[in-house]
Amino acid sequence: MSYQFQKMPEEKVFKDPVHRYIHVRDQLIWDLIKTKEFQRLRRIKQLGTLYLTFPSAEHSRFTHSLGVYEIVRRMIDEIFRNRPAWHNEDRPLALCAALLHDLGHGPFSHCFEKIFNTDHEAYTQAIITGDTEVNAILSRVHPGFAQEVADVINKTHKNKLVISMISSQIDADRMDYLQRDAYHTGVSYGSFDMERILRLMRPTEDEVVIKESGMHAVEDYLMSRYQMYWQIYFHPVSRGGEVLLNRCFKRVKVLYEAGYQFKSQPMHLLPFFEDAVSVQDYLRLDETVLFFYLQEWMNEGDAILSDLSRRFVNRDLFKYLPFDGSVITIGELTELFTQAGIDPEYYFVSDAYSDLPYDYDRPGSKNNRKPIHLLTRQDQIKEISTQSVIINSITGVNRMDYKLYYPKEMIVNIKDPAIKGAIINLLNELN
Amino acid sequence: MSYQFQKMPEEKVFKDPVHRYIHVRDQLIWDLIKTKEFQRLRRIKQLGTLYLTFPSAEHSRFTHSLGVYEIVRRMIDEIFRNRPAWHNEDRPLALCAALLHDLGHGPFSHCFEKIFNTDHEAYTQAIITGDTEVNAILSRVHPGFAQEVADVINKTHKNKLVISMISSQIDADRMDYLQRDAYHTGVSYGSFDMERILRLMRPTEDEVVIKESGMHAVEDYLMSRYQMYWQIYFHPVSRGGEVLLNRCFKRVKVLYEAGYQFKSQPMHLLPFFEDAVSVQDYLRLDETVLFFYLQEWMNEGDAILSDLSRRFVNRDLFKYLPFDGSVITIGELTELFTQAGIDPEYYFVSDAYSDLPYDYDRPGSKNNRKPIHLLTRQDQIKEISTQSVIINSITGVNRMDYKLYYPKEMIVNIKDPAIKGAIINLLNELN
Amino acid sequence: MSYQFQKMPEEKVFKDPVHRYIHVRDQLIWDLIKTKEFQRLRRIKQLGTLYLTFPSAEHSRFTHSLGVYEIVRRMIDEIFRNRPAWHNEDRPLALCAALLHDLGHGPFSHCFEKIFNTDHEAYTQAIITGDTEVNAILSRVHPGFAQEVADVINKTHKNKLVISMISSQIDADRMDYLQRDAYHTGVSYGSFDMERILRLMRPTEDEVVIKESGMHAVEDYLMSRYQMYWQIYFHPVSRGGEVLLNRCFKRVKVLYEAGYQFKSQPMHLLPFFEDAVSVQDYLRLDETVLFFYLQEWMNEGDAILSDLSRRFVNRDLFKYLPFDGSVITIGELTELFTQAGIDPEYYFVSDAYSDLPYDYDRPGSKNNRKPIHLLTRQDQIKEISTQSVIINSITGVNRMDYKLYYPKEMIVNIKDPAIKGAIINLLNELN
Amino acid sequence: MSYQFQKMPEEKVFKDPVHRYIHVRDQLIWDLIKTKEFQRLRRIKQLGTLYLTFPSAEHSRFTHSLGVYEIVRRMIDEIFRNRPAWHNEDRPLALCAALLHDLGHGPFSHCFEKIFNTDHEAYTQAIITGDTEVNAILSRVHPGFAQEVADVINKTHKNKLVISMISSQIDADRMDYLQRDAYHTGVSYGSFDMERILRLMRPTEDEVVIKESGMHAVEDYLMSRYQMYWQIYFHPVSRGGEVLLNRCFKRVKVLYEAGYQFKSQPMHLLPFFEDAVSVQDYLRLDETVLFFYLQEWMNEGDAILSDLSRRFVNRDLFKYLPFDGSVITIGELTELFTQAGIDPEYYFVSDAYSDLPYDYDRPGSKNNRKPIHLLTRQDQIKEISTQSVIINSITGVNRMDYKLYYPKEMIVNIKDPAIKGAIINLLNELN
Repeated sequence: MSYQFQKMPEEKVFKDPVHRYIHVRDQLIWDLIKTKEFQRLRRIKQLGTLYLTFPSAEHSRFTHSLGVYEIVRRMIDEIFRNRPAWHNEDRPLALCAALLHDLGHGPFSHCFEKIFNTDHEAYTQAIITGDTEVNAILSRVHPGFAQEVADVINKTHKNKLVISMISSQIDADRMDYLQRDAYHTGVSYGSFDMERILRLMRPTEDEVVIKESGMHAVEDYLMSRYQMYWQIYFHPVSRGGEVLLNRCFKRVKVLYEAGYQFKSQPMHLLPFFEDAVSVQDYLRLDETVLFFYLQEWMNEGDAILSDLSRRFVNRDLFKYLPFDGSVITIGELTELFTQAGIDPEYYFVSDAYSDLPYDYDRPGSKNNRKPIHLLTRQDQIKEISTQSVIINSITGVNRMDYKLYYPKEMIVNIKDPAIKGAIINLLNELN
Repeated sequence: MSYQFQKMPEEKVFKDPVHRYIHVRDQLIWDLIKTKEFQRLRRIKQLGTLYLTFPSAEHSRFTHSLGVYEIVRRMIDEIFRNRPAWHNEDRPLALCAALLHDLGHGPFSHCFEKIFNTDHEAYTQAIITGDTEVNAILSRVHPGFAQEVADVINKTHKNKLVISMISSQIDADRMDYLQRDAYHTGVSYGSFDMERILRLMRPTEDEVVIKESGMHAVEDYLMSRYQMYWQIYFHPVSRGGEVLLNRCFKRVKVLYEAGYQFKSQPMHLLPFFEDAVSVQDYLRLDETVLFFYLQEWMNEGDAILSDLSRRFVNRDLFKYLPFDGSVITIGELTELFTQAGIDPEYYFVSDAYSDLPYDYDRPGSKNNRKPIHLLTRQDQIKEISTQSVIINSITGVNRMDYKLYYPKEMIVNIKDPAIKGAIINLLNELN
Repeated sequence: MSYQFQKMPEEKVFKDPVHRYIHVRDQLIWDLIKTKEFQRLRRIKQLGTLYLTFPSAEHSRFTHSLGVYEIVRRMIDEIFRNRPAWHNEDRPLALCAALLHDLGHGPFSHCFEKIFNTDHEAYTQAIITGDTEVNAILSRVHPGFAQEVADVINKTHKNKLVISMISSQIDADRMDYLQRDAYHTGVSYGSFDMERILRLMRPTEDEVVIKESGMHAVEDYLMSRYQMYWQIYFHPVSRGGEVLLNRCFKRVKVLYEAGYQFKSQPMHLLPFFEDAVSVQDYLRLDETVLFFYLQEWMNEGDAILSDLSRRFVNRDLFKYLPFDGSVITIGELTELFTQAGIDPEYYFVSDAYSDLPYDYDRPGSKNNRKPIHLLTRQDQIKEISTQSVIINSITGVNRMDYKLYYPKEMIVNIKDPAIKGAIINLLNELN
Repeated sequence: MSYQFQKMPEEKVFKDPVHRYIHVRDQLIWDLIKTKEFQRLRRIKQLGTLYLTFPSAEHSRFTHSLGVYEIVRRMIDEIFRNRPAWHNEDRPLALCAALLHDLGHGPFSHCFEKIFNTDHEAYTQAIITGDTEVNAILSRVHPGFAQEVADVINKTHKNKLVISMISSQIDADRMDYLQRDAYHTGVSYGSFDMERILRLMRPTEDEVVIKESGMHAVEDYLMSRYQMYWQIYFHPVSRGGEVLLNRCFKRVKVLYEAGYQFKSQPMHLLPFFEDAVSVQDYLRLDETVLFFYLQEWMNEGDAILSDLSRRFVNRDLFKYLPFDGSVITIGELTELFTQAGIDPEYYFVSDAYSDLPYDYDRPGSKNNRKPIHLLTRQDQIKEISTQSVIINSITGVNRMDYKLYYPKEMIVNIKDPAIKGAIINLLNELN
């Protein structure tokens, strides 16, 4: 039998708290899991700095990737198989794309990417198609298979149905991470009835649709997603951790560019400083490596770098205040911080974040989102917000929030009473 | 109010999947949690290499330590308070000892300790009584308080009741880790009715006893413990990870002692090589640091070190076989491996492990275990195995298991057919 | 100590799947639980006919009542106590009202009440203030205490704070039943973070308010409520069971009024037929008694009564169709059923139901609903829909649904092909 | 396609808290579920009087029967299918026997059977093979099929493999009820890893065996069973409910035989009094009917009957004391009760109960139990207690317990001080 359909003599399973067991019978999947590039995902936390707020959120992208694979496998083997719109020769493509969709994530992705101009989606593609163990295995299927997998993850593949299984507003990726992140943080918000949603999914030529009797289950899923964003992912304390980390990376880059002599040279970061990063350079980075350097930087002579890295490592976070996003406020405070001798570049950070719980592509809309489609009993396709009052109420509604971050004790220690008073007054007005 | 009884204006909580919330109202506890020594526990996994088998078992000693504190807090505030045998002035001592009991754990404790002769219990004491942030805070209670906390953890304190809350055969430590490890591995074995056990615990002058109506709940707890040991903690695959790590550390130490020039000097380990480790040296080590070096070693010129570290990092584990512990078998195979040019020091490992699910100190017994005592309705104290058929059946029953570990593909590649055949025959006989 | 504050020597607990344990320490509460009127709630299902759709939903109002008591007890003992706005002398009043709030529920409340003009709220009052064991116990507190408890349940008591703990849009009643009904049906929709909501509840003179940091938890609770209504409580199959039961009761009453001679006289129902019901008559009714008669009626000579009761007992439900509520459609079908010789009074039922997930009293609004109030960090009170986009979107939005019920096989068996065809055509248009 | 393999156009599901969903695709199974005999199981509680102790334990034999069916369906469709020892033409037989195995259970089985000499196993057979809806459906498969199903349930069928799926020491029946009863009582004891056990079950010609890697999961299952027996099923309070009910039935039978004129004749029981019970008579009985009569009896003139029935209905249970089973003690107390004018036949009950957690048929053993067999990696069959220390320790170990039940306040009210004193002394000695 050709490699992509080859079964192992006995099924392998992983114990998993979300799906109970993850089942692997395909040799191809098993071989991919054993690659060093996939094993590297064990050293990258799924939720970055969120463990600073939710201490049990220490799980990695490795288990999430297995979970997405398992959901796609169940979609195919339990629901789609034997339905006319599903072509089972696409099974290896769907399973590989599901398993590998996060392969290019780096350590503390969001903070790191902003400073070093890396892009995890581009690296996912580069790892899959480059000179890697993963590529060697995919290429055993056929020479163009690795590129096809990358295309599905990039959403450029011609098979829109397979893309929608992994990347849509109700896909295996989101269904896994909402449940998994809820499990590991210990909150109840991420719960929804995935079993019912799976049972009611139907393949069409272009996308996965959901039978209309599943409308309430989808409502519940979208609300879980909304709650997870605002209660967990956007938690201001953990964003405070990101703020610190971001400023650390910024400082270290600035120092390097200024010719600073590090006591301990951050070898792994040099290609990033020089903007000449190979796939192998990228793969050498993970959170254990960054944490090694963060701890080294605590001993550097540069006061800002050593302070920021110490704060992050020992969780001595900035204080935060909600504010209305006003540019004037930020301007005034930036000026006052500077006068007080506190560098606002590193010690005064405004953070904005927003979420669009559900939307779809309409004339004039900026996003590029595919709608969630229901399948009626008369086999018609209807966009879900036309059927659900609840979903209609949140469709296209963007919510923004702003926070200011600064080190409280530095304000307290400002010598000049006028400047100190002015800062405190401005901050009090925000509160 | 004196520091050890000072409450914060508002309670702080941590979301926790095992206890729902961990409640902190005491300033002393809050201050200890914020120390860098306690925060370091976030970088040490509770279950070492077990994530190689149970991929979600990525939780740290940080959350476990909070959990033990929470259980002891509930014992005191919900059950013991207002009972004559409990003296509430011991509350700070009990809470601090609970929180800090694992403070001296190092990275991958068991493997590391064996090679470098460190002892996490001694380091717990050293950190608590040495020049650390934790010590500074404890000393604010009174000058001898840090030593008292260390004495409770060391089981040398005169207050046997407080010791038994944290270190006995049914203590807060075990009750937390069984549940927490089960939660994160995703297995059901760790479940028992802690609420009932807590409700039925009674303080006496010497120890915590359990009302006899809780006997079945204790049986269930001991069985959970037994199952967790044999199904989770002793899982042969994850012990295979320990075997590899142990041989890595051994190799690196041997190389250092032989004057090997490392491409990248493992600075943090030098004090351990030299057996001149300060508390500060010890505290600088954590799993992110060791993982950094493990990845560096993959590029070292020494073939054994680079192979072993690559195997560990990329999870290319040894194969294992059960065997009967026979020294003769080991001797024969060791000899054959040597003849085949495979260094048995690193590539042929026999591993023995045993567990005594419950026992107590009797004349001639080697352990030093306090019995679990039941309190009858007539206020008599009875050792539990005299009351429970199930517990009686496992009391003092030691179970041993043996495994052999070796790299399967090295055997396959042995050139000399006679040696290869002899090895394969011997291994087949074991299976 | 006076009776209402008297504690039992040892706490009693009930094992409960929702709250783990229900704790009773007050003699007054224990005595109330032991009364025959409270024990009767074991024989009345919490969810009436819902077990016909969700087979495990067989739990009684007894456990729900204990659950509401437990939540109010925790509110008081864990959150309110020691806060200035809470007066602990109101504790017995609040606990008794919580425990007894459903005391007047009869068997299959909704169907029964419609036919026999009984009102469970009036009966709750009558049982509490009448000649009952419950009244005797409450009167031991002081002569007017029973009336006070009834007034809280009736929402006429002057203590608005206590009322709001038991009857508001986020009260102990709803928090218990959402979780309990979800547990017993086996669905995930009823989950929300009650622990967080409780922790953030604050008593004021007039009501319970919630700290604004709990806004998302309240959103999640309101969404759980919405989902439970549309996915569980309004499930069309179980409403089909209610439709049948309602028509059974109607038929038996019509027959009695027409002088029909029952083979087995329904003794317990005579006072209801005659509209001369005493409290004792009412208390003799429960679901075991009604089920006894329903099974007797299967053998009655009246074809309609025997058919309807057989259908209910053996779960041979009517078919249902969604429709738009059009009076014209109903009129046409009623006429056609009559022509076909199928009595539309019993065999053609239109059912409308609606839910208002959240609203508050505004000029012109028909409801009498108190808003949910948030407490800001500046101690201001704000109505929740002004703060939450999600809640704002559902505030005052009433959703209606309509279903038609009829016995499918009777349509199939209509002799006259023209009438049969006309009915089938009309029904097909609806679908 | 022949009826027994006919699939419905779309799968039907029941929501179930234990198995999430119960899946029905076979027309045969769906038709059986709709019969009145199967629907009757909704009116018989799974755990009889246990709700008096664990108030949420109100679930019926209906959901348990569906659960056993679902487990057998999964065994076949997920594990056995395509293995040589499994013959898929036995699937309908196995599914029907699983679904119907409890069909003959009557109301409060254990109490009722003792007094009226009925036997639920004989009635299961009688209902399946008699003139019933169930029989009509089974006979559509082929004329002898109903008898085959009955033979499997009776363990007389020649297909030992199918029997062992439903009736053995590790069968679908036990695996369902342990989990289901734990869920509804709210205890944690019933949890074990059914998924793992299912995955490791293998069919042989004679029985289901379990791969040896599942040994610990079986240990855990047997311990769950042991705990559920001693902590839940044998709970002395709920056995006190059985004691009362048993004495009620005894009294009503004695009265009938003595020609007592009931105010309200218990029509449904007359065939039982006369020992002339037809299948139809038996099927008319359920717990709603018995509860109707129990409430009627509260108003009967016979003081013993009205007292006992009132006690049961209103949960005014006897007090209980543990004792050593001594016949002498019982004799002395019986005599003293008689002297005090309290009829010991009804008001002084000794209750003995025992459990054998695991055993197998050996020369001289009284039970007729098949061992649990493990399948080794070398395909050998080994009895489990030879492999497991834990199971070996409980094999064949019978544990007995004794309780005495009596009405406490009747003792208190004895007029003669000598007799009263003597009784109280004897009871105190027991305690």
